[in-house]
This record gives sequence, C-alpha cells and structure tokens, in this order.
Amino acid sequence: MSKYSIGVDFGTLSARALIVDIATGKEIATAANNYKHAVIDETMVYSSKKLPPDFALQHPQDYIDSLESVVKKVLDESKIEPSDIIGLGIDFTACTVLPVYKDGSPLCFSEKHKENPHAYIKLWKHHAAQKYATLINETAEKMGETWLKRYGGKISSEWLFAKILQVLEEAPEIYNEADYFIEAADWVIWQLTGVQTRNSCTAGYKAMWHKRDGYPTKEFFKSLNPKFENVVEDKLNCPVISLGTKAGEITKKAADLLGLKEKTAVAVGNVDAHVTFPAVGLSQEGDMLAIMGTSSCHMLLGKTEMIVPGMCGVVEDGILPGFFGYEAGQSCVGDHFAWFVDNFVGDIGENKNKFEYIAEKSSKLKPGESGLIALDWWNGNRSVLVDIDLTGLFIGMTLLTKPEEMFRALVEATAYGTRMIVETFKENNIDVKRFFAAGGIAEKDPFTMQIYSDVINMPIKIAGSAQAPALGSAIFGAVAAGSKNGGYDTIDEASQVMSSLSDRIYTPNPENVKIYDKLYAEYKILHDYFGRACNDVMKRLKEIKANV
Amino acid sequence: MSKYSIGVDFGTLSARALIVDIATGKEIATAANNYKHAVIDETMVYSSKKLPPDFALQHPQDYIDSLESVVKKVLDESKIEPSDIIGLGIDFTACTVLPVYKDGSPLCFSEKHKENPHAYIKLWKHHAAQKYATLINETAEKMGETWLKRYGGKISSEWLFAKILQVLEEAPEIYNEADYFIEAADWVIWQLTGVQTRNSCTAGYKAMWHKRDGYPTKEFFKSLNPKFENVVEDKLNCPVISLGTKAGEITKKAADLLGLKEKTAVAVGNVDAHVTFPAVGLSQEGDMLAIMGTSSCHMLLGKTEMIVPGMCGVVEDGILPGFFGYEAGQSCVGDHFAWFVDNFVGDIGENKNKFEYIAEKSSKLKPGESGLIALDWWNGNRSVLVDIDLTGLFIGMTLLTKPEEMFRALVEATAYGTRMIVETFKENNIDVKRFFAAGGIAEKDPFTMQIYSDVINMPIKIAGSAQAPALGSAIFGAVAAGSKNGGYDTIDEASQVMSSLSDRIYTPNPENVKIYDKLYAEYKILHDYFGRACNDVMKRLKEIKANV
Repeated sequence: MSKYSIGVDFGTLSARALIVDIATGKEIATAANNYKHAVIDETMVYSSKKLPPDFALQHPQDYIDSLESVVKKVLDESKIEPSDIIGLGIDFTACTVLPVYKDGSPLCFSEKHKENPHAYIKLWKHHAAQKYATLINETAEKMGETWLKRYGGKISSEWLFAKILQVLEEAPEIYNEADYFIEAADWVIWQLTGVQTRNSCTAGYKAMWHKRDGYPTKEFFKSLNPKFENVVEDKLNCPVISLGTKAGEITKKAADLLGLKEKTAVAVGNVDAHVTFPAVGLSQEGDMLAIMGTSSCHMLLGKTEMIVPGMCGVVEDGILPGFFGYEAGQSCVGDHFAWFVDNFVGDIGENKNKFEYIAEKSSKLKPGESGLIALDWWNGNRSVLVDIDLTGLFIGMTLLTKPEEMFRALVEATAYGTRMIVETFKENNIDVKRFFAAGGIAEKDPFTMQIYSDVINMPIKIAGSAQAPALGSAIFGAVAAGSKNGGYDTIDEASQVMSSLSDRIYTPNPENVKIYDKLYAEYKILHDYFGRACNDVMKRLKEIKANV
Repeated sequence: MSKYSIGVDFGTLSARALIVDIATGKEIATAANNYKHAVIDETMVYSSKKLPPDFALQHPQDYIDSLESVVKKVLDESKIEPSDIIGLGIDFTACTVLPVYKDGSPLCFSEKHKENPHAYIKLWKHHAAQKYATLINETAEKMGETWLKRYGGKISSEWLFAKILQVLEEAPEIYNEADYFIEAADWVIWQLTGVQTRNSCTAGYKAMWHKRDGYPTKEFFKSLNPKFENVVEDKLNCPVISLGTKAGEITKKAADLLGLKEKTAVAVGNVDAHVTFPAVGLSQEGDMLAIMGTSSCHMLLGKTEMIVPGMCGVVEDGILPGFFGYEAGQSCVGDHFAWFVDNFVGDIGENKNKFEYIAEKSSKLKPGESGLIALDWWNGNRSVLVDIDLTGLFIGMTLLTKPEEMFRALVEATAYGTRMIVETFKENNIDVKRFFAAGGIAEKDPFTMQIYSDVINMPIKIAGSAQAPALGSAIFGAVAAGSKNGGYDTIDEASQVMSSLSDRIYTPNPENVKIYDKLYAEYKILHDYFGRACNDVMKRLKEIKANV
C-alpha cells in the first residue's frame, strides 16, 4: 500500500496544497484557496478605520480556513485514505508575525483588541517599521554587533525585531499583553500539533538568531528601548528547532477539522523559498537555487560559515541540516520587465500580450548589438550592495535605439546582477558549482533564462514541479514521519526520491558568453561607481526629489 | 518713396524669399520654392545609378530656378517697383560646395560629367568624406597645426577640405578639370554679379581660413596627398571678403531673369545660422543667439580671440564685422524629443499630437520631482566635448517612473548642454551677457524654452520673424546698397531699424533656478565622468556593437 505526504504552501494571497506519493514523488492532487481578507492594507477588518501608510496585515483565521479547505480538497480529489497520509509539512512567507496569548490564541481574536491593527499579523511586506529597522542598524553598528555582518551589514524593516519594536513603541498595550510573538508558520504548526516550536530557518534569516550564539544580547535590546531588554525571554521563549525535525503530531481537534488521522507527523515550519531547495533535489555543497519572479531569491549550500559582503544572511541548518544556508536576493527582476511593458509598449492590437510581443522582438537581437547597458536597480539593490536608495540606469542610447533593445538591456541587467551575486560568493570562498531555477520566470520565460545561462556561463536546470514549494513541504512531511512510519529519516533520502527536476536545461552559448563577459566587465565598473559611493548621484537625486 | 531689400534663404529643401521695407523692417511679402531634385542621395540625376552610402548631393540649376521663382513671386505679390529694390542678400546651408570651370559653370552641367556624382554639389550633410576628415585631423595633430585649436581640436567631415580631398581621391578627373571649388552661397552670388567672391563666414568656419594667417600651409596639404599641395592656389584662388561688404551688382542677364533692376547691390554670401544674428538685432559683445531645432547652433560675439575648448570655431568678422564670432553647437536637441515620442509614446487616439500630449504631461511636473537626469548625447556631443562617439544616458529610474518624466529629463538634459556651452565660454573669459533664441523650438515650444531659461538662469528673448534668416539676408542687402542708395552703411545701423525681436521673453523662475543649479551640478559630474575619458564605456559599447 502506497504512503503519501501533504505539503501546504502559504503564499501572500492564497494557500496551495499538494498530495504526493512518498515512494515515487508523483503529484496526486493539488488545491488552492484564497484568503478571505487577502492583504489588509487600506481599512481595518471590522470597521472602515483607515490604516496608516505602509501597513500590510493578515487575519490568522484565514490561514486556518484555507488550510481546512485545501487539505479537504486534495483528500477528496485523490480518494486517498487519511491513514495512508503519514506526514504534513507547511511553508510560509516570512517574516510574517503575530502576537498571541500563552495558549496560542491571537490577540486579534479577542473582542478587546479586534480593532487594533497591531493585534493582527504583520505580513512580510508590512513596510511601516522602517524607522525601527534604521534604529536597529544604527545601534548595532555603533555597538559593533558582530551578527550584523551575517546580514550583509543591514537588517530589513521586514524582519522580526523591527516589527515587534514597532508594536512596543506604537501599541504598548498589545506588546505588554502578548505572551509571544510568533511566525505565522510556527503558529499554524502549533494549531495543528498543540506544541509551540520555532523553526531555525525564519529564526536565523529573519530574527538574527544564530545556532551557537543565539539572539542578540539584552544590552543590545535595552539600548533600543529599556522596555525591550527582555524581549527574547518575555516574548520568544521557545527553543529553535532544526529543519527536518518533527514538530509534533496532529491533535484530535486538528484531525477532525482537516479530515486527517490523529497523530499524523507534522514537520517543523519553513520559508517558501527555502523549502523549494529539496523539492528540486538539491543537497550538494555549491548548489545554488534561484527563485525568479517579480524579485529573486538566491539560496546556496555551503560547508563553512563565511562572511560574504552583501548577502541577506547565512544560517546554519537554515536550508538543509548539516549545511550553512546562504541567502542573497535581487529586489527587482520581473518588476523591471513589467515597468517597461506597462509604460513603454504602446498599443499592439487587442488580444495580444505586450510582454510576449516585446520579448519576441528582443529575442531576435544578438548580445552586444544594441550597445546598451542597464543597472537593475529600479527598486534598489538587495545583494550585494544592500542599498534601497539606489535607482536605475540606462546607458548607450542613440537615435536608432529601439524599445526592444532597451527591454533586452533590462533583462540582461538582471542577469548581470545574478552574476554579481555568484561571483561575490566565489570571491569569498563559497563556491557555486551548480545553478538551478524555479518560479514564474524559470517556468515561463525561456528568452530570459537563456540570457541568464549565457551571462553566468553555467548550465541552468529548471524545477520540475509547478508547485515546487508545496512539494518541498511534502518532502519535509515525509521526513517528519520517519522511515518506521513509511517515510524517510533524512531530507536527503526523501529528496532523492520525491524531488522533481524538469528536463529543461539552458546551456551557455560560447559565442554569447564571450560578448557577455565584455558587457559584464562594463556593468561591474558602473555597478561599483554608482553603487559603492564613488558617485552618490542616485541618492542626491532622491534627496532633491524628496524636497520638491 | 520707400526703399526695399530682398533676402533669400537657401535651406536644405527649399529657398524662401522675403521683401522688407528698409525704413521700418516691415515684412511686405514672402515666398518659398522647393528644389526640383531635393536631396540627391539614392540614385543619380539622369540615370538610375545607385549612389554610394552617405552621399548627399544637390543640383545647381535648382538654386537658380528657385531663386527666380521666389524673387518673382515676392515682386508680384508686393507690387513694388524693381527700381525701389535697392539690395539683395542671400544665405545658405554650409559647407555646401561644388566644382566649377573658370567661367563659373558647374562641371555637372557638362555632358561629359553629368553622370559623375563628384561633379555635383556636395550638400552640407554629405557624410561620405569621414575618412578624409579623420586623415586631416590625425595629420594636423601629428604636425601640431595650431589652427586645429580654433575648431575645438577636430574638423568635421562636413567641411570643405574633407569634401575636396574626397573628389581628388575618388574622382581625380573631376578634381583636375575643376578650376574652382566654391561654396554654393558664393556661386549663386557669382551668377548674380558676374564676380567671384568668397565670404569670410564659410571660409572661416568651414575652410580653416583665418583673417591673418589665411589657409593651412602647402606642407600640410601635401602631407595629406602630394597632389593636394596646391589646392588653395589651384582651386580656391579668390580673395575672402568680409561680411557686410557688397559683392557686386546684378548683371543685365540676372536682372532680366529675376525681374530686378540691373546694378542692384548684392551682399557677400552668408551662412543661414549666422545671418540670423542681425535679424534679431544683436550687435553687442556678449550676445548669444541659439538657433534651436533638431540640433542647435550657438553664436556669440566676442571682442578678443580666445581658444575655448570644444567650440566649433572662432572666426574674425565671421558673424558681424568688428567681432570675433564664436560658434558652438549641440548635435541633437529636437531629435531627442522626436526619438522619445516616436518610440515610447503609444497610441493616444487619432488626431492627437503625441508630442503635445507628452509635453503637456511633462509641463505639469516640477523640477527635480522625477529624480531623473539624462545626458543629451543620443547623437554624440558637438560642444564642448567634440565627440561623435558619445551616447545617451538616463539615471534615477524607479518602478514609479513615468514616460513624461523621462521625456522631461531629456528636455532638461539639452538645457544642461546649453548651460555647459555658456559656462565654458565664461570660464574662458568670453562673457555671455544676453541670450536669444530662434528656430522651430524657440518659435513653437514654450515648455522647453521656460526650462532653458530656468536652467541657464538668464532671460531668453525670441526672434520676431518666422523667416529670421531671410530677414538677416535682407539686412545685408540693405547694407550692400549703402546709405547713398537709400540703404545703410553698417550692419549695426541696418539691424537697429530692420531687425525684429518678439515680445515673448522667458524669465527664470527663482525657485526652479535653485533646483536646477543642484541638478546641473549632478549633470556636470556625469558629463565629465563619461565625456572626459574617466570611463569610456560608451565607446567600448560601440566597439562591441560594431564587432557583433
């Protein structure tokens, strides 16, 4: 009798479930469900009270309702007996965090707090905590905090302590009453198992936690705000668990809700990008996986902990146990292409796709033919410069320059950005030996993928599953079950059987590689000139703009 | 009884005549006539023989026919008696040059040569002599020729000796048989007066002639080609005459052709841009006039001869007698705007003007609001960098950047280019005290003109006549006649009465000036970094492009 695992991927707007055959990796059924309240960023949930700028909240009930919906749907559709489902794993956006009471119930469920925005989940893209992030960065730099280096010298306003500090400063009643602040991934696991856990992935990448050193010191937190001194023991008091571990087993209550069997194994939570790693079957030192969409996330397995300038973070066991998981990113990839298409591609007739139209024209050009280079900084630069105030550049236009040439220059610029990340790792003794890609662009855009392969001069293999994160979570579910229950004992074993890599591979064209080597050399000069404070014109222009 | 003067402006595609009241400057009648053969740039005149690339020829008979047409038309329309027309002046594109026999008849009129392209007029924009221009520049630099400095260090392929050298090298039979090579302006004057003259304006700006030093030396010409040694005495043997002088009087034959009175005074020829100067009434040291169209030409009156880096040339008496006439230019102004509109402004509905649409949107933005800067080098940079291999740049884009912001950045960039020219003159002790503008942009585009005024922080006054060059020629016609015939003895006197300045004046807005000062400082840093060999990326991209 076959055994199965379920993976559930919680995205920004919906949850997707996948049920997978543990012995073959075959995807049996899939289901999706949109969150009822989606992203709460204009008015409050139960009133028309307007939210402050840059708030982005979610409602915890939506996660539970969507989880119920998608699990029931895949069970229904697949006709698999609950007793043959041996494990469940989930992955989530991060840092997506909420305040809860000792029993795990969210403060926003209480009548008392349901109109207070700070009682709700702060979604990863809640950007209203920038001033607290800035304070954290300035203070850490002043105090010479060594952990800052592990995050490329700057932590983001999207991360845990910036968000909690915002609650303390702006809604102290919520801060005081909360027994815990917890990642949504860990909170859903808690609802399933009745046991609170904290996963090493979000703790490491988003909460400045380190396997050996733990969190930053009390002195550090105190210097942000005296009342923040004991934030770790007061609000995060729970051990951090390695990925690949069982968080617990499904309670009777959760089993009844979802239609699963009581005591089914549940894996420790994970981040949507990171969980994709084993779904593509990667488990070797030097494997890099890029999740390419509106922005890109690059994950890399290393055997040693090195300080690499400009990465987003390095976390032991953060991607796979036994490895140092490095993360880097490009804050704007597909968004560049959408900007160009939306603003500069005119009417091309009804029923035609503007993106396909311009990509088709661009694809007929040869590398170097346009004489153009761009810097891919329309939304700042995450890696390796870690500077949100950088902006875009186009150079080389003549009166004969065509829109498709500028479009192609933008695509190439994002590829140069990826090469800069790859080379920065290599220069810092973290080798990148194989390159894999998943996400919307990897899935649907061969034009862009071929340029990436030519620019980085490496073959690029593409993820096999269209639901790669959910597949990754199912793999972790199978590991949580363990071999004695028909699962696996290690992620590596599970991944070898259940992962899925497409046949599609993009191979560098040697002629193109030669030309892109020359163009990349030019990109690098411009990158350093504008990005490393030789000429801060981009920032000065932003200042002038801000004062108009 | 009123007296009148006629000015005829020979442009690239047509001639325009204007008849003007000498005592008031009132424009009585105007007429235009297109050249029958327009620009000959694809096939030869009397056969379908294809022309080589970059050839741009004209037919001399077209000038005579158009002259006859437009003079007769203005006479007819105005009902003025030929005896009341006391002077005639003409201006021309330059350098526009043809080979002729001793009697002034063009070689291309002979049966023997009518199929030889080199027997025809090489129009100013004939660009097939670039390799000879390059040879001239390299040789001059090697030999340390001091005249090179007067032209910003480089002569253009559009100028006289590059064009004649091309004839010697590619059609020696034409070179040998020609008794003269002559500017079209001077040739038409010759046809009218029976006397050959050479005007100091074209000789100075286009033929490396200097009032005191004359032409370059025989040694120099010899080192280009031994057969070129005596080009000046063999092919240009005619004195150079100052502007404002009478070239001669209309012959019986010409009088019969045009319907004018025999012995009517004819002024020495002039260049279309330069002749506009007195038409706007300018005669003071420090007056700058910009002719603003697809490209821009800047003319400035100085009292001393200084070497100013990056100008197109300085010529004594080249604009007005008694002054050193400085010329500078921007090789791409309106062409930038057309490039943007043609490529990046989509369908905005029928019967709407795309340029007006985007300019209207741009005009609502405040200086600095876009956070953008451009370098206005889509067609290289004429002044002050004298480098055709420079290309364009946009910097500062974000995901919120709108097309109208990029359009405005281009307009501003051309204004910064003008400011760079103004400041370069000032830094080299040639003051710019007043600024005037003529041409299509000055005439029709208040949005752009206000930005120019704000950027250069000077009031800008606009030419009064829509036919400013023809008015300038009429002024020179009145001076050729002299006071004893009812005209004037000096250009200054004539200009004071006959010139025309519009009431329109653009005055700097102090708030905008402050912001543009900051933006110009940024432009200057980028200008010098990319334009003065700190980073030759633009050239290297062109090289890569050329090798694809």
